[in-house]
Amino acid sequence: MRYECSWRVDVQKLPCLILVGLGLHDECGLTLRGLKSARDADHIFIETYTNYMPDMSFSNLSNILGKEPIKLIRKDLEEDSGRILEYAKKSKVAVLVPGDPLIATTHVQLAVEAKKLGIEVAVVPGVSILSAAISQSGLQSYKFGKSVTLPFARGRQFFETPFEVVRENKAKGLHTLMYLDVDCEGRSMSIGEALALIMNWEETERKGVFLPSTLVVGLARIGSDHPVVKAGSIEELRTYPFGPPPHILIFPGRLHFMEREALRYLAGASEESLESISWAKK
Amino acid sequence: MRYECSWRVDVQKLPCLILVGLGLHDECGLTLRGLKSARDADHIFIETYTNYMPDMSFSNLSNILGKEPIKLIRKDLEEDSGRILEYAKKSKVAVLVPGDPLIATTHVQLAVEAKKLGIEVAVVPGVSILSAAISQSGLQSYKFGKSVTLPFARGRQFFETPFEVVRENKAKGLHTLMYLDVDCEGRSMSIGEALALIMNWEETERKGVFLPSTLVVGLARIGSDHPVVKAGSIEELRTYPFGPPPHILIFPGRLHFMEREALRYLAGASEESLESISWAKK
Repeated sequence: MRYECSWRVDVQKLPCLILVGLGLHDECGLTLRGLKSARDADHIFIETYTNYMPDMSFSNLSNILGKEPIKLIRKDLEEDSGRILEYAKKSKVAVLVPGDPLIATTHVQLAVEAKKLGIEVAVVPGVSILSAAISQSGLQSYKFGKSVTLPFARGRQFFETPFEVVRENKAKGLHTLMYLDVDCEGRSMSIGEALALIMNWEETERKGVFLPSTLVVGLARIGSDHPVVKAGSIEELRTYPFGPPPHILIFPGRLHFMEREALRYLAGASEESLESISWAKK
Repeated sequence: MRYECSWRVDVQKLPCLILVGLGLHDECGLTLRGLKSARDADHIFIETYTNYMPDMSFSNLSNILGKEPIKLIRKDLEEDSGRILEYAKKSKVAVLVPGDPLIATTHVQLAVEAKKLGIEVAVVPGVSILSAAISQSGLQSYKFGKSVTLPFARGRQFFETPFEVVRENKAKGLHTLMYLDVDCEGRSMSIGEALALIMNWEETERKGVFLPSTLVVGLARIGSDHPVVKAGSIEELRTYPFGPPPHILIFPGRLHFMEREALRYLAGASEESLESISWAKK
């Protein structure tokens, strides 16, 4: 395959640090620009722990890049980033990062540290679950309010925020993107677990935010060759076979006619589950 | 360059409609998965009017794809989508779309129409300005509230929403992503024009939302080889040389310490402009 991809600018100057987004799910989410800039680098590092990349083939990635990237663990970036920056002081260094490179604070911090040392920094954006989940739901991006993460149960103080965020967004007719937690062993929360947690909370608190009939959109493996997008009531989705992670949820607010159509035809929502939500024609 | 990119699933079944995200700025934003799925299609269509792709080289794209995509104009998708769907009833059709395919309502509608006709639909996500602008600002994605578009002046009723959205988000400490309008001749609003419009509105309405010292982040040509990200006061950014479009704005809410560092080191904010905003340590 032939392709031309210009990379004309500042990062041509050595030394530099280039943060390259790997996109979602596997190595095929990489953009042509990301590929080119990693191939041009003297050293390629990769971390795959800030986002779960289930089907990533390290050997295929090495094939694509023409060399084997050096794997980083959490400690390398969070406690010992100086080592990478030493390389970037003397040569062109690419760090491959799942999703979009600056969505995670860890990489913002790395970029800031590099700048403080006078190192040139460039970023090649990647597909992020933030925009991909929103778009694949068929819901309109400008109608999303604040997003939130649902953590595994670890005591009450962790609990209130996600429910409060959904309630506040709903009160304004806005949709909520809800990330599902990953625990310290790297286990991702499933949609079934998340909805059980939510209904459990609602049964205790009785705030009336989540009913068994409440409309929700579940999304699994977005960006892969076998994504699942399914809209329905909480009751329906609790047992729906979404398959392996990563999973993510969206709680819709008020629906525009076109959004209703999208949930019906692209996410298989039944008429009944759509009835549970108020919707505005415009 | 060798690469392997599996595409195992439903879309192998003919016929189908595959919406492929082109990402930002030029053809090099395409992902390997997007490239593979377009090359596998019997017919490739492309539209480039829902997002501005300043450096897109049609001939380079044709080279990469191994065939010349058929250009679509607005009417082809909005009034005459039946023609594309006729192809998709009989063969594998890829439609290349700037950014992420389902962020624009036009393509959601196309996907819904296809499904109604029983056509298999697949989506290959692309880099969207939604996530890329948020991440490149160095601000934390979960602290963004509702986003909004600033339209060209066309009478008062169009005006209130963007200011109201920024005001409401700020009141809750949330950041606001503000898209800048494109007029019917395809001219994109610049950051300078946008800030002039905003200060003009503030001078008339005196709501106290925007002061000359108010912190704002301007972003130009995100996803290209020569992006500009600059944070500063409205007064500073009104005359800052951002270069050609596309431009986009972010109005920060409350800043975390790390966000403050990011604006300082990655977006060149002066200490003075950062002082104008309240910030919380966590």
